Amino acid sequence: MTLSFDITTLRQGYLAGSFKPSDIITEVLSRIESGDSKIWISVDTKERLLAQAAELETKDPATLPLYGIPFGVKDNIDVAELPTTAACPDYRYFAEKDATVVAQLRAAGAIPIGKTNLDQFATGLVGVRSPYGVPGNAFDPEYLPGGSSSGSAVSVALGQVSFALGTDTAGSGRVPACFNNLVGLKPSRGLLSASGVVPACKSLDCVSIFALNASDAQTALRSAAAFDPSDAYSRQAPVQLESPRRAYREGMTFGVPSPEQLNFFGDQAYLNLYLEAVGQLESLGFKKQVVDFSPFLSAARLLYEGPWVAERYWAIQELIKEAPDALHPITKAIIEKGIDGTAVDAFDASYKLQAFRQATLPLWDEIDFLATPTAGTHYKIEEVEADPIQLNSNLGYYTNFMNLLDLASVAVPTGFTPKKLPFGITVIAPAFHDEKLLQVANKLHVASDLALGTSDQKVFPELAPFPTETLSIAVCG
Amino acid sequence: MTLSFDITTLRQGYLAGSFKPSDIITEVLSRIESGDSKIWISVDTKERLLAQAAELETKDPATLPLYGIPFGVKDNIDVAELPTTAACPDYRYFAEKDATVVAQLRAAGAIPIGKTNLDQFATGLVGVRSPYGVPGNAFDPEYLPGGSSSGSAVSVALGQVSFALGTDTAGSGRVPACFNNLVGLKPSRGLLSASGVVPACKSLDCVSIFALNASDAQTALRSAAAFDPSDAYSRQAPVQLESPRRAYREGMTFGVPSPEQLNFFGDQAYLNLYLEAVGQLESLGFKKQVVDFSPFLSAARLLYEGPWVAERYWAIQELIKEAPDALHPITKAIIEKGIDGTAVDAFDASYKLQAFRQATLPLWDEIDFLATPTAGTHYKIEEVEADPIQLNSNLGYYTNFMNLLDLASVAVPTGFTPKKLPFGITVIAPAFHDEKLLQVANKLHVASDLALGTSDQKVFPELAPFPTETLSIAVCG
Repeated sequence: MTLSFDITTLRQGYLAGSFKPSDIITEVLSRIESGDSKIWISVDTKERLLAQAAELETKDPATLPLYGIPFGVKDNIDVAELPTTAACPDYRYFAEKDATVVAQLRAAGAIPIGKTNLDQFATGLVGVRSPYGVPGNAFDPEYLPGGSSSGSAVSVALGQVSFALGTDTAGSGRVPACFNNLVGLKPSRGLLSASGVVPACKSLDCVSIFALNASDAQTALRSAAAFDPSDAYSRQAPVQLESPRRAYREGMTFGVPSPEQLNFFGDQAYLNLYLEAVGQLESLGFKKQVVDFSPFLSAARLLYEGPWVAERYWAIQELIKEAPDALHPITKAIIEKGIDGTAVDAFDASYKLQAFRQATLPLWDEIDFLATPTAGTHYKIEEVEADPIQLNSNLGYYTNFMNLLDLASVAVPTGFTPKKLPFGITVIAPAFHDEKLLQVANKLHVASDLALGTSDQKVFPELAPFPTETLSIAVCG
Repeated sequence: MTLSFDITTLRQGYLAGSFKPSDIITEVLSRIESGDSKIWISVDTKERLLAQAAELETKDPATLPLYGIPFGVKDNIDVAELPTTAACPDYRYFAEKDATVVAQLRAAGAIPIGKTNLDQFATGLVGVRSPYGVPGNAFDPEYLPGGSSSGSAVSVALGQVSFALGTDTAGSGRVPACFNNLVGLKPSRGLLSASGVVPACKSLDCVSIFALNASDAQTALRSAAAFDPSDAYSRQAPVQLESPRRAYREGMTFGVPSPEQLNFFGDQAYLNLYLEAVGQLESLGFKKQVVDFSPFLSAARLLYEGPWVAERYWAIQELIKEAPDALHPITKAIIEKGIDGTAVDAFDASYKLQAFRQATLPLWDEIDFLATPTAGTHYKIEEVEADPIQLNSNLGYYTNFMNLLDLASVAVPTGFTPKKLPFGITVIAPAFHDEKLLQVANKLHVASDLALGTSDQKVFPELAPFPTETLSIAVCG
């Protein structure tokens, strides 16, 4: 039986002395070498990886939460001594140091294996907009791997690494999770540092985590999260008197969009699976409430119709001015529109967004989380080639609003279509409710009785408890 | 002796039955009629004001915190049945209903007397950019009244009304307070609703309060503040575990800019008065700490050099396109530049601002408030006429950063120059520390031993205590 790379299994093996980090590195490299060459843009050298393993082997595995855990890094996040390309060869540079989030994980004992393929400049939800090729979907290579964090998702689903970092501005950490049977955590904005990450929309970007189960996502999150003064958008979770809403409780209320606000783009299989997942949540004791999803959809439309594309232009303005043909043609067509908008347009859209934000606030007094499909459908690659912009846009129907509205979310697998393709839903709550969402995702994942990634193994450890302590304090009105 | 219109004195008189609201209305109208005609753009009719007074007279004064208190309203804030002009006759419209903040005050028993003059569209810190003339500074009409809330400040200083509403985007609620010997509260953004207020920079605008002392500002604030879903930028003070920083304590630490970061534009009198005020704070037991003021100054420069002027353009785009000559020439010259910026510029500036915000955050772990001059100098009107844009800009040196950095502040009088012109400092802290700042302002005001406004009366009631209660709660990490 193939060794599962979920964190619990590896940790148990390390603690029992069944294997050492160098054994795992050798196994990782063997799995990568025998797999799809489009998943990775660069893999660190065996020599350097074994040197890291050797250093870990001088330590007690019990002292490091991610001792010897191999992980992948989307190639728009810096790893020291490796090139960063953002899937654009002309943009390539060598990273002098780890991005903060990589440094955090390394300090916790994890080993970054290499850099994974992506939709160029993290622009896309499809995973096919890369000069480095298309990482094959882990279940059926005729179908999209999902993007933009395509390689990160596929590498985890195939068991090449335990978890992987993605980025998620508009859905890039969730859509590929859905299409590859993974948990995809899109943390609260600013919880993971974006220092050392190539910006997409700098005001909205999040580093995300692909994992086999919610427990692994939680473990990686807790090691990765750190306030970072070098990232202007870094935030600490406020210590607030809202614990009942931020912590998991039995019998919480969840919102679902009203039926006419759902859109499956004709995909009956995905519709059926969504209804099943909602039923599963109810059978777990959560209370369903139909909510008005329209302000979320309106905010989602702002992202691509509004001025935020100017942020993508800002991020690569030198390259796009000097060498426009360095860009993937679809990426170029999208990003070059960013120069058109005026500052008046930008403020106008920001006012609209603020109104949508305000409109959604009362909802969070009524419900504890929202549950939507992660994506409405799953296209074949050839379908997207025929209509690359519209079908990509369809995939963002349930994802584009998330960072604009300052929400946290977790994509979780819940079932498979008759064609054996994975489906999942996304649970959503305000920023800094990440831990609650991971608990919900875990309950649902366990109830769905699915194996991890492409494996036949079902490993679902209990999550670590929510950190609480009781204090007597003065409340300021 | 002239009856002081401070809230405490009026309330005592009402409770004792010494006078009724109709008596005060008659007195208000008499004081306005005998005063400078440039202060008010419109005053409500005696008939309607007396009708409001009569309605109040059916009630028990003890039941309403602002029973029979007359107040002025800057003419960019709607009062039902009065015109709103924003000091632009071609913009004039009749308000169908009160702005939320006016409705709140009216519900608390206060009586809006009329609409006060301002720098057109609240653009300016001088008070001379209005086709309705220049309200004379309450101490010397050769000198600036300060703006943009010129009429609101002067009316309170002269004792025509008890307090007045202004707006404060870049300093319009503080500079005129400084120049007219008043307390000027620039509340936390979103604490007072901006619904029914003509936008200047919609993302930054605050309604502000001019009062004779900190107690009156506190009383008005508590009645005026209300979460308003109709204002997308309305916010509730978060209930947080940071009470030690939000509540007043003896011996708090205050920051002052390092000497080379201070700028008095050659005004030795203002420099001396600032140093005296800082000494006064120390003698009150507060601990001084010199801080790096540069990120505040950098943020301040962004406001007028950066894309935020596009917000001013947005607010009056129809008028400026259709009838550009309807604008005051200086106002027009400033606002029409708002069309030039791109969305890329806007995001670029927002990134810079975010970095300045992040840079200032650690400071608030070290100090409880900042203390700066409110303005570095006080110009004569003729000086500003000779160099209208630069001298206006100089007046914003200590004020422009406030809303960009999401800070609360209170301008408080601390002394007079040898020419008998008032000076004051501004105390500054993060959003929702308003009550703490009012307490500091009150201590300093009392210690400065100044009379209220232009009167010879010194009425300094204790402020209401900070609302606290002790709870046992679970803290979320």
